[in-house]
Amino acid sequence: MTFDQLKSYHSDRVDALCPGHPEIEHEGIEVTTGPLGQGVANAVGLAIATKNLQATYNKPDFDVVSNHTWCMIGDACLQEGVGLEAFSFAGHLKLNNLTVIYDNNQITCDGSVDLTNTEDINGKMRACGWDVIDVEDGCYDIEGLIAALEKARASTDKPTFINVRTVIGIGSAVAGQAVAHGAAFGKDDVANMKKMYGFNPEEHFVISEEVRNFFSSCVPKGQEHVAAWEKKVQEYESKYPELGAEFRRRREGKLPENWKELIPTSFPEKATATRASSGLVFNPIAAEANNFMVGTADLSPSVNMIWKGKVDFQHPDLKTTCGINGNYGGRYIHYGVREHAMAAISNGLAAYAPNTFVPVTSSFFMFYLYAAPAVRMGALQHLQVIHAATHDSIGMGEDGPTHQPIELAALYRAMPNLLYIRPGDSEETAGAWIAAIEAKNTSSIISTSRQTLPQLKQTSRDGVLKGAYVLEEDEDAEVTIIGVGAELSFAIDVAKELKATRNVKARVISFPCQRIFEQQSLEYKRDVLRKHRVPAVVIEPYAPNGWERYANAAISIKRFGHSLPGKAAYKYFGYEIGTMTTKIGDYLDKIKSDEILKQEFVDL
Amino acid sequence: MTFDQLKSYHSDRVDALCPGHPEIEHEGIEVTTGPLGQGVANAVGLAIATKNLQATYNKPDFDVVSNHTWCMIGDACLQEGVGLEAFSFAGHLKLNNLTVIYDNNQITCDGSVDLTNTEDINGKMRACGWDVIDVEDGCYDIEGLIAALEKARASTDKPTFINVRTVIGIGSAVAGQAVAHGAAFGKDDVANMKKMYGFNPEEHFVISEEVRNFFSSCVPKGQEHVAAWEKKVQEYESKYPELGAEFRRRREGKLPENWKELIPTSFPEKATATRASSGLVFNPIAAEANNFMVGTADLSPSVNMIWKGKVDFQHPDLKTTCGINGNYGGRYIHYGVREHAMAAISNGLAAYAPNTFVPVTSSFFMFYLYAAPAVRMGALQHLQVIHAATHDSIGMGEDGPTHQPIELAALYRAMPNLLYIRPGDSEETAGAWIAAIEAKNTSSIISTSRQTLPQLKQTSRDGVLKGAYVLEEDEDAEVTIIGVGAELSFAIDVAKELKATRNVKARVISFPCQRIFEQQSLEYKRDVLRKHRVPAVVIEPYAPNGWERYANAAISIKRFGHSLPGKAAYKYFGYEIGTMTTKIGDYLDKIKSDEILKQEFVDL
Repeated sequence: MTFDQLKSYHSDRVDALCPGHPEIEHEGIEVTTGPLGQGVANAVGLAIATKNLQATYNKPDFDVVSNHTWCMIGDACLQEGVGLEAFSFAGHLKLNNLTVIYDNNQITCDGSVDLTNTEDINGKMRACGWDVIDVEDGCYDIEGLIAALEKARASTDKPTFINVRTVIGIGSAVAGQAVAHGAAFGKDDVANMKKMYGFNPEEHFVISEEVRNFFSSCVPKGQEHVAAWEKKVQEYESKYPELGAEFRRRREGKLPENWKELIPTSFPEKATATRASSGLVFNPIAAEANNFMVGTADLSPSVNMIWKGKVDFQHPDLKTTCGINGNYGGRYIHYGVREHAMAAISNGLAAYAPNTFVPVTSSFFMFYLYAAPAVRMGALQHLQVIHAATHDSIGMGEDGPTHQPIELAALYRAMPNLLYIRPGDSEETAGAWIAAIEAKNTSSIISTSRQTLPQLKQTSRDGVLKGAYVLEEDEDAEVTIIGVGAELSFAIDVAKELKATRNVKARVISFPCQRIFEQQSLEYKRDVLRKHRVPAVVIEPYAPNGWERYANAAISIKRFGHSLPGKAAYKYFGYEIGTMTTKIGDYLDKIKSDEILKQEFVDL
Repeated sequence: MTFDQLKSYHSDRVDALCPGHPEIEHEGIEVTTGPLGQGVANAVGLAIATKNLQATYNKPDFDVVSNHTWCMIGDACLQEGVGLEAFSFAGHLKLNNLTVIYDNNQITCDGSVDLTNTEDINGKMRACGWDVIDVEDGCYDIEGLIAALEKARASTDKPTFINVRTVIGIGSAVAGQAVAHGAAFGKDDVANMKKMYGFNPEEHFVISEEVRNFFSSCVPKGQEHVAAWEKKVQEYESKYPELGAEFRRRREGKLPENWKELIPTSFPEKATATRASSGLVFNPIAAEANNFMVGTADLSPSVNMIWKGKVDFQHPDLKTTCGINGNYGGRYIHYGVREHAMAAISNGLAAYAPNTFVPVTSSFFMFYLYAAPAVRMGALQHLQVIHAATHDSIGMGEDGPTHQPIELAALYRAMPNLLYIRPGDSEETAGAWIAAIEAKNTSSIISTSRQTLPQLKQTSRDGVLKGAYVLEEDEDAEVTIIGVGAELSFAIDVAKELKATRNVKARVISFPCQRIFEQQSLEYKRDVLRKHRVPAVVIEPYAPNGWERYANAAISIKRFGHSLPGKAAYKYFGYEIGTMTTKIGDYLDKIKSDEILKQEFVDL
């Protein structure tokens, strides 16, 4: 980093390498930081990545993977839930290749930390399964710091927490105060600090010869390390050609070439829940392609992400009460009921090296609201993380409105660089996984149903790759019916019923992913939508926000759900074929004579 | 609850009192549960409510408030971040009126808890400042349980955690197994259990005379307690008429009658950030109306929620390093960097008794994504919780894309029973607070700017109460420009510039809240929007999702933000008056000759 770049901190330079928070786009930055607590979980993901690669590729004579993860945190990271979830999980996994260095200055924005947190943090970390090292004078005791770091790296079988007492803004006039966090010190104070430390207060951006020489000497050292490692890997590849080739493939961020062929070309005709379809599509890939690290927030029986022969990622010595054990070479992660940490740890896995790992998370769709800040950070960092979200829509009814994600699709359809895909049957679920797996710099949510769905003849995986496509065409149609995901068959049935009861011709389109559709050509989009020729009605038991772009009316839900068995819930909210047919038919009649209504978006 | 209602568990009865999860709408249910971990924080809120009322109203001779909060949790609540944040905070506050009873069966959906969590939970709770009581045999040791509960109620100066070892599905064939959690036992197993416990397996929904008598005897006991308490309150009101009247007002969920008059009728004309406007509007109300419990997730210096003379809610013995102390009568809560718990604790405060407390939270808008699951639970439970969210839009630029909430408004505009309000200046901020305070069964987010904004002559607080209103009318207008919140002045300036440079007449509407607007009459909505007469363009640096209902085109942002100082960020994303004017002018020209484009939603 040049002086010029250093000067760009908080500047209006668009190409600044020193923005307010470190960003992954810039060389040498492992993950983007900013939202507190995420980094703890990211670090756990990085440490898991190392453990898994070591277990998979290292040989007694070849430690081709040997890095240690160091994570610097502040007081706030110890307050945020996502950090606390990650600490607990890292202790469980005994990640002894992870060291968290706690910059314990006891200051946050509001004042001293004891305004809000007076717990025994060392005791808490020990209870979570961490080794704790204290550094009493983190400001001046350099040798103590070095000793702590050395000890942490040599840790036995636990992650290490180094509690380093520091003083924020040390040397400044506001040392030890909250204002030292966010506000600039001011010229005079900086000048005083420089004087105190023996610098010339009139000189700016100066580095002494001694320091410059030290850092310059790091460059050849680094180059030597790289050369030595590359030589080692070359020898490894000679001695273990198969593993070596695979290790190379992984480092290049590639999947086995045949991954797409592992997906069934056809599916059973019987009604199938798309959460089951997800298993049919993805399990064969997960079994073969060891880039995938698949996890669940305690919903293994519901999300169907377990492939035949899966091995859990666990400390090899762990013996669980239920008898499901594993080792660090395993690629199935029981995250516990920690949705937020699951997604943030997955970001760390993905950030280890581009596409070397492709993390998959799984939970009920509703609980991706718990995980949302981390899902966002994955999308923001262009990380490929795939979230298998089941129990979408209102078909999981019995669990009630707390589990019915009425407004959640609106969030994820608006979130940049994220594909929110709702497949309608197994064939579309194949398309959804292909889209997510091919999106190497983008996160995805594959949103599936709890309840069984009919398998449709008109669906196509290639159609999903265009975001929306025509299922049933009719050049004389008076209406386009947009079907989505679990309710896709409703669109087809309503079209039939419109013809049968009102002699109204309808075309039907399947619309699994808005963002993919937006990426298509204007010509394709207009050809599919034809909004300028016939009105379109979307059927989806979610808040309609965003569908107004593609439809003229919606059979949607603008209130919270209701606790009822799936079928009863659909009925309660008016998603019966007859009811929907009447609504759409009446709407079409009305707009014939009401020019204003015709130009408004209508909730049916 | 009748047998008939008990039978409604998971049934398709719309009026079931036994839905999948307890719901606040039904008598005797304190809070709606379902999403794990929320309940821990709700319980902390309930306990804070008690402490605050006690400190405010109890007298040495009158304990008019004396309840204890009991909270039952499972293994998962100890894994979720929101629970962990709340535990830590409750320990800090020394809430000795709170007891958490941990149903420690060591089973979650995936299997035994030791798959994912092997920490020393008692040690962790002690480190968090809790007393811990063990009950080794929670299945059969009734006396041990009672002793633990008695001890907890008499706890010294800490909240109490009772760790009760239990067996899930005890007595059934699947006792101690994960399947006992979600699946029905089946007829045979239930019959066996009944036999084992001495019941007739052929009889269903039977309660013995002995049990029935015991519970029947509870009714008069309860009535006696109520009568005794009412008598006590009556005497209290005689002895302390002023306090008594206030206590009654609070119990009736009323604010002081003059609350609206406390809001300034006019504001300084100088440019003011709406986060500062929020303080000008709300601080005088908070000072007077002690229903308000105001908190912040460590952003006191940024959110302007501190009123003159505010007292912190803290344990009275706490002596902080920074010297800001308080007592249980205080109404300003430093939540620490715990956004999620802040919102969930606020739900508990609000659930204590309807509108007795009106909790206010505050943080940057972006961090309401951390809090989102709890904000949702507040809205779902019809709780009045007001979230003062600052640093919205892209004006906080330097903090970068992690802090720029591009897609977050889409979530909150779609969330049922929540008012997401973006005021444009101080006058509109007054309207936003009035709307939020008058919405007694609805949660609100008041979304304000970091940067200063011009004070507009055309704005009106009454306009905000209609969701959208006309700022500048022109019967011959060719376009409606929709301005929102921090960018409202842009709409006015662009309208001027359109006239000056292109001789295009524009009308301007201010649109602070979509949900309030939706509640207006069709006539009013059509009169404001006039979408059938002239095209509308919305200006907002957020994802446009949802604006398609009201506008034909948007100057919006469909990618993540960029780290730049506020003004530079606006420029970078094309929010300069000239640029916007050109975009809108060109758009109007284009649609004159392009009938298809005219009917599509266009991103400018």
